[in-house]
Amino acid sequence: MITDIINKKRLGKELSYRELDLFFNGYLSGEVKDYQMSSLLMAICINGMTDEEVFSLTKIFIDSGDTLDLSFLPGVVVDKHSTGGIGDKTTMVIAPIVASLGIPMLKMSGRGLGYTGGTIDKLESIPGYRVDLSEEEIIHQVQTIDVVITGQTASLAPMDKMIYALRDVTGTVSSIPLIAVSIMSKKIAGGADKILIDIKYGNGALLPTKKDAEELSSLMKKIGKIYQKDVHTIISDMNTPLGYCVGNSLEVMEVLDILKGKELDTNLTKLCITLASELVQMAKGGLIQDAQDMVMEAISSGKAYDKFLELIKAQGGNIDDLSVSKKYKYIKAEKSGTVDKISAIGVGELSMLLGAGRKTKEDSIDYSVGVKLYVQVGDKVKKGDILAKIYYNKAPRLREFKDIFEIK
Amino acid sequence: MITDIINKKRLGKELSYRELDLFFNGYLSGEVKDYQMSSLLMAICINGMTDEEVFSLTKIFIDSGDTLDLSFLPGVVVDKHSTGGIGDKTTMVIAPIVASLGIPMLKMSGRGLGYTGGTIDKLESIPGYRVDLSEEEIIHQVQTIDVVITGQTASLAPMDKMIYALRDVTGTVSSIPLIAVSIMSKKIAGGADKILIDIKYGNGALLPTKKDAEELSSLMKKIGKIYQKDVHTIISDMNTPLGYCVGNSLEVMEVLDILKGKELDTNLTKLCITLASELVQMAKGGLIQDAQDMVMEAISSGKAYDKFLELIKAQGGNIDDLSVSKKYKYIKAEKSGTVDKISAIGVGELSMLLGAGRKTKEDSIDYSVGVKLYVQVGDKVKKGDILAKIYYNKAPRLREFKDIFEIK
Repeated sequence: MITDIINKKRLGKELSYRELDLFFNGYLSGEVKDYQMSSLLMAICINGMTDEEVFSLTKIFIDSGDTLDLSFLPGVVVDKHSTGGIGDKTTMVIAPIVASLGIPMLKMSGRGLGYTGGTIDKLESIPGYRVDLSEEEIIHQVQTIDVVITGQTASLAPMDKMIYALRDVTGTVSSIPLIAVSIMSKKIAGGADKILIDIKYGNGALLPTKKDAEELSSLMKKIGKIYQKDVHTIISDMNTPLGYCVGNSLEVMEVLDILKGKELDTNLTKLCITLASELVQMAKGGLIQDAQDMVMEAISSGKAYDKFLELIKAQGGNIDDLSVSKKYKYIKAEKSGTVDKISAIGVGELSMLLGAGRKTKEDSIDYSVGVKLYVQVGDKVKKGDILAKIYYNKAPRLREFKDIFEIK
Repeated sequence: MITDIINKKRLGKELSYRELDLFFNGYLSGEVKDYQMSSLLMAICINGMTDEEVFSLTKIFIDSGDTLDLSFLPGVVVDKHSTGGIGDKTTMVIAPIVASLGIPMLKMSGRGLGYTGGTIDKLESIPGYRVDLSEEEIIHQVQTIDVVITGQTASLAPMDKMIYALRDVTGTVSSIPLIAVSIMSKKIAGGADKILIDIKYGNGALLPTKKDAEELSSLMKKIGKIYQKDVHTIISDMNTPLGYCVGNSLEVMEVLDILKGKELDTNLTKLCITLASELVQMAKGGLIQDAQDMVMEAISSGKAYDKFLELIKAQGGNIDDLSVSKKYKYIKAEKSGTVDKISAIGVGELSMLLGAGRKTKEDSIDYSVGVKLYVQVGDKVKKGDILAKIYYNKAPRLREFKDIFEIK
């Protein structure tokens, strides 16, 4: 019986594959109700899951849909995922770099819930850019220009889509086993041979501590092993926003700057170089230093930038029409000193208030608003210096966001 | 935000009165969804509640409806509640005993979910018996004949009704704080001065161990203190069925036998005498021995029996039309020895299978079926002796219930 399964997990006992299958597929068929699923999800959040349960559930998620066969692509097929954060535009930077080196990058990304849009929302800020490519279009494009960034097709792990939407509104997002199942089921169904996961921790991330990130990393690698997928992870800090821009159009503009080689020194660019180098090494083997040299050369030669423009054009986007709001305000330094902290969650909440993110799935995003930081942690500033430019359509009360910057 | 409140409880933090109020009244108004409430309830089940949270939630439950004013009744007004179990017919026995001693007993009882019907279902097995008295009828009847047993009016703690229905289908029933809030909010809204709670533990009860029962007892007394209600508790064992009969009509028949003084030696009758004596002492003061003498005299004189018939007649019931199924089977002893155990949960499951209980709120009850035990724990039996008579309409497979009786 349905409640017996919930009660078992409430008491912290292990659920069998059969019990999980009955419950989750019952949810898909409508026999198990939303309120029963959310109750079980909360019990899982608090009482955890054994590795066996995680493996069972991953299989159930994968089996709920199709699995892509990418064997038509040459060589080792790599994929990359980030657990997300404030100003995280790594996918848009890395995919063209790696593709420009002849390594196919077929990226299916998600929309964002929370502080800013997801990769797909950000790309949609480019007028005309299509994120709903069919399987045939995806395959054609990756064979032609080596790179695709589109939305998740409905046929891959549909269970994850349903469960994620419920978790989002029931306070059951922060569960390491559930995060692992969600990401890994999609990635495995996506058909890559090797998967790189960028796991973030900190006040602007899903996971608060580095320890949590390490736990998630270890669990994902175990899942990968079962499916003979080589899983690499990079654990990165998300207490400070990534790069200079948070918003949608604004973030695409920052990507253009990075690919032009203009912003090599930010925390974002450094992370992108690390991730891209890792992907190149995963695909081609060899030394990491050689991989990094290739990545730097892809940027400095302009090949990665050209690849990004090629990607946008292939998916119908017109980069010249990208725009941000004409209304803006500044946040200025209230004293002189060194920038000690820039709160990722603070910038995220501000960006949310401006309309760059979604509170519920029904909310629409204002692509033209956001936050542009003028400083990075460690920079020296004088009283009155501009710390950030706020692009808005509805004027925000900035007084509530005084604590974003800490100057010492 | 709704999910912030859920997340707080997921992390084991204390919720303020304001947060609980927002969440639970949001549920009543439809703003908080079923799937959000069940998620919070599960977090409460696992992470518990502080005393402050329990007091807040009790107040919210009480304030969701009316409070009965029973000051028109003479003397100290007492009320009684049982957490329920297999064969528990104490209310039907005690109410007429106590009322026959001039102490008004206004009992609002519930329907049953699970192994057997609740008190209200059992009384409905008496053809004609009305359980939907209006507030005016209730008051008129208690003033005229000192006793009423009817269903809960919709106006008392309506929040409890909604939450209970959800808990029942989401595996969130077994929570000591939630049980305390549910019972105490109804009892306090019910308007009595002093409340007696019969808390059961064991395999046939909501709470598995005596320790759980003691914890619930202590919590209920604390809640009572805040509302200046004297709360007395009696903790009783529910590993063995109470009395000889489990079913609906069958249980009413057993009540008639007890009130005729025929069954003074069963675990049920002993418990009823204990509870009734406690209620008499609570209402009239004096020594418990004197109270017990009055109770025994109420039975032996036939006054309690007459009062039960008066109650049934007042509420429209015709006791002469009470009937059980004409089809029956026996369970017989497979060896000689002493009856060491009679499993309450085993009898409960059998009674459920026969149709005496409900699995979902929509199920209907078969009043005419049930189990009549021929032995009590400690009785000596010979191989082939009848242990129980099973009244059925759809023949059950008794082989699955072999383990109800343990003979050593």
